[in-house]
Amino acid sequence: MKKVGVAILGFGTVGQGAYKILLERKETIAKEYGVDISVKAVLVRNKEKAIAAGADESALVTDIKDILDNENISIVAECIGGVDPAKGYILSSLKSGKSIVTANKELFAKNWIELEKVASENNVGLYYEATTGGGIPIIRTMTEAMQANDIKEIKGIINGTTNYILTRMTNEGADYADVLKDAQALGFAEANPIADIEGYDASYKISILATLAFNRVVPVELIYREGISKIAKEDIEYGKRFGLTVKLLAIAKMKDDGKYEVRVHPAFIPSSHPLASVSGSFNAVFIVGDNVGDIMLYGRGAGSFPTGSAVVSDVVFAARQIKHARYDGIEKAVTKEELISDFESSYYLRLNVHDVAGVLAEITKLFAKYGVSIASMVQQEGKDTVSIIFVTHATRENNMKKACEGIEKLTDVVKIANLIRIEK
Amino acid sequence: MKKVGVAILGFGTVGQGAYKILLERKETIAKEYGVDISVKAVLVRNKEKAIAAGADESALVTDIKDILDNENISIVAECIGGVDPAKGYILSSLKSGKSIVTANKELFAKNWIELEKVASENNVGLYYEATTGGGIPIIRTMTEAMQANDIKEIKGIINGTTNYILTRMTNEGADYADVLKDAQALGFAEANPIADIEGYDASYKISILATLAFNRVVPVELIYREGISKIAKEDIEYGKRFGLTVKLLAIAKMKDDGKYEVRVHPAFIPSSHPLASVSGSFNAVFIVGDNVGDIMLYGRGAGSFPTGSAVVSDVVFAARQIKHARYDGIEKAVTKEELISDFESSYYLRLNVHDVAGVLAEITKLFAKYGVSIASMVQQEGKDTVSIIFVTHATRENNMKKACEGIEKLTDVVKIANLIRIEK
Repeated sequence: MKKVGVAILGFGTVGQGAYKILLERKETIAKEYGVDISVKAVLVRNKEKAIAAGADESALVTDIKDILDNENISIVAECIGGVDPAKGYILSSLKSGKSIVTANKELFAKNWIELEKVASENNVGLYYEATTGGGIPIIRTMTEAMQANDIKEIKGIINGTTNYILTRMTNEGADYADVLKDAQALGFAEANPIADIEGYDASYKISILATLAFNRVVPVELIYREGISKIAKEDIEYGKRFGLTVKLLAIAKMKDDGKYEVRVHPAFIPSSHPLASVSGSFNAVFIVGDNVGDIMLYGRGAGSFPTGSAVVSDVVFAARQIKHARYDGIEKAVTKEELISDFESSYYLRLNVHDVAGVLAEITKLFAKYGVSIASMVQQEGKDTVSIIFVTHATRENNMKKACEGIEKLTDVVKIANLIRIEK
Repeated sequence: MKKVGVAILGFGTVGQGAYKILLERKETIAKEYGVDISVKAVLVRNKEKAIAAGADESALVTDIKDILDNENISIVAECIGGVDPAKGYILSSLKSGKSIVTANKELFAKNWIELEKVASENNVGLYYEATTGGGIPIIRTMTEAMQANDIKEIKGIINGTTNYILTRMTNEGADYADVLKDAQALGFAEANPIADIEGYDASYKISILATLAFNRVVPVELIYREGISKIAKEDIEYGKRFGLTVKLLAIAKMKDDGKYEVRVHPAFIPSSHPLASVSGSFNAVFIVGDNVGDIMLYGRGAGSFPTGSAVVSDVVFAARQIKHARYDGIEKAVTKEELISDFESSYYLRLNVHDVAGVLAEITKLFAKYGVSIASMVQQEGKDTVSIIFVTHATRENNMKKACEGIEKLTDVVKIANLIRIEK
């Protein structure tokens, strides 16, 4: 039987999950997949902490050189996170002839081409199932099951923290700030939650998925990104009246004119859409292929064992390869000019206005001026002001923005309380 | 670039889809996957019919020998369906050193071990993504993405015809017979719909999935099977009142005592369950792994291009292999004794009774006798009789059956209108 030595870099949430699964399933994996996988080393900064968390002392090393120089190690599973020192470790592992399995979405999304080049030069493999969607086999699906399809569209809930917060706001009618605080106390959100709630995490993941879909690298910094912190419980409440549920969506679309839309932002979707029932910290990705039609994958997008499961899946997959597949499909990166910023969307617009005659006429005049067509409207009397909520038909983003700029200047409009896109 | 010749057996719905995709995507597949795939032969009975359906005349053959003897063909995609002559063609292809891709669930479920043995002896591959779930990558997920998991449970909607019928009955309040007739007219059900509506088709597919999950062949003939023809619109209506939606479910569970449950039958599920919103001819499979937790895959379970997409995915996957993976995990077949027939379930029971005092007391006395605990009850006055609907707590199948036998004998019980399991 083929014997394969593995090193794990980092012993945090994901590293521990991968470590424990590899140990516990060693015999089963050997029996079912024909590879005898041993964890030869675990790189940590603090040995005592790792031992307390369940690591076997004999495997612990504190110097990457002990891994690079160990010829019995052919696969390195990077579970550190962050760009530094992880990137250096990955590059030197590849150059030492070791295949890489990584769970590091930020590093991978920002350095894919460079890593692929070094892996190719050294005839080793690069595996990244754990970067996106936790335990959901979305990468394997894209690389090993969609060969018959041009991917026209990907639409997903790929950040568990924000989905947890939005789900609780939806179910409990709770305020954003209260739920965030609670999520932090329960471990569903980090002490510094910026990467999640402002959509950075989702933008790394959609960059990876869009790159696989379009065979063009989609640079993270070109992806339109908007977080969930402005979503108010009022928006969720009004959304329900229109049959809409709010989610932080990551979207990648290939348009007929050869251009692309890649964006991360909160969006209302019909409450009957399969993505609307994806609740709590679950993730789901909707893929539209030209031959297969719509498919959706759903599961736990984070956590020690779900993400550890993805790492181990890659380790076993890599261990069984005789020749590692190269991802040759990547052409030059998508440019800013090829990305559509003035995309088409429907909108939900919530305004606070003074309760005076004529204000609605002034607003609708501005909509007409910019070609924004209204699908429905709700007025709600408040204490001093009136809330008006519009749902528009599909319109261009720029037209909607111009209409809003005009509306904001009207004397009797107190403020634009929120503007949220609607995805069909 | 590696050149690979493919033969397609059969030019029906699936064969045509695979053929058209392979032709149309030849360059794209070569560019993205590094294999140059050519369709060298298409086996048909009637050349004229195939030409009319879009086949290139030069590829058509009517004798399997022309494929077996062609050394440029290394992969044979069997899209004929049925056991005979497909089985003979597959066996002789394997023996001629050609890998098999098949969409034939009945043949595969009934002959897997034999086919695997012959494939192994001839060092060729056996691929069967298209047997189950149409375009949903469920087989690839089970074989290439669940290495870190013991699969504890699979629960799925894996027959599009029955799901189409039940969805329309649910949405329209329509009768089974009317919807079936309409489904046949629209091509969603076959002229002879028995294989679908009586659950045979689903039993082949769950046999394949259960075998992959448990690494034990689960013989089709041992799978409990019940179709949808007894579901009445009244059941669907009452189900709604209890927050339940009826689906034809295929279920495979590994129990803690080392036994298994594998069954196909209509079942009520909570309307909030992700499977409840899988509508029309869509399929979805829910998998529970011990490390990954719950995952779900959703998509089109049938059709020329979705299933053709699965065939082509296998062809590309097979074409890229240097050494075909053997499915070594299969141990001896699960026996009848290892399958639980007296499983635990909640039940929905609909009775027609005479409107006389004391009948309810007699019924509940029988429930008490067999340890069946009632969760809720609804009584509905009719013209001559009263409908009583019970929803029970979890109980053993045999106890429920005994209670029903007793109930049926009561003087004032006109009939047991329906008994439907409830899956949580």
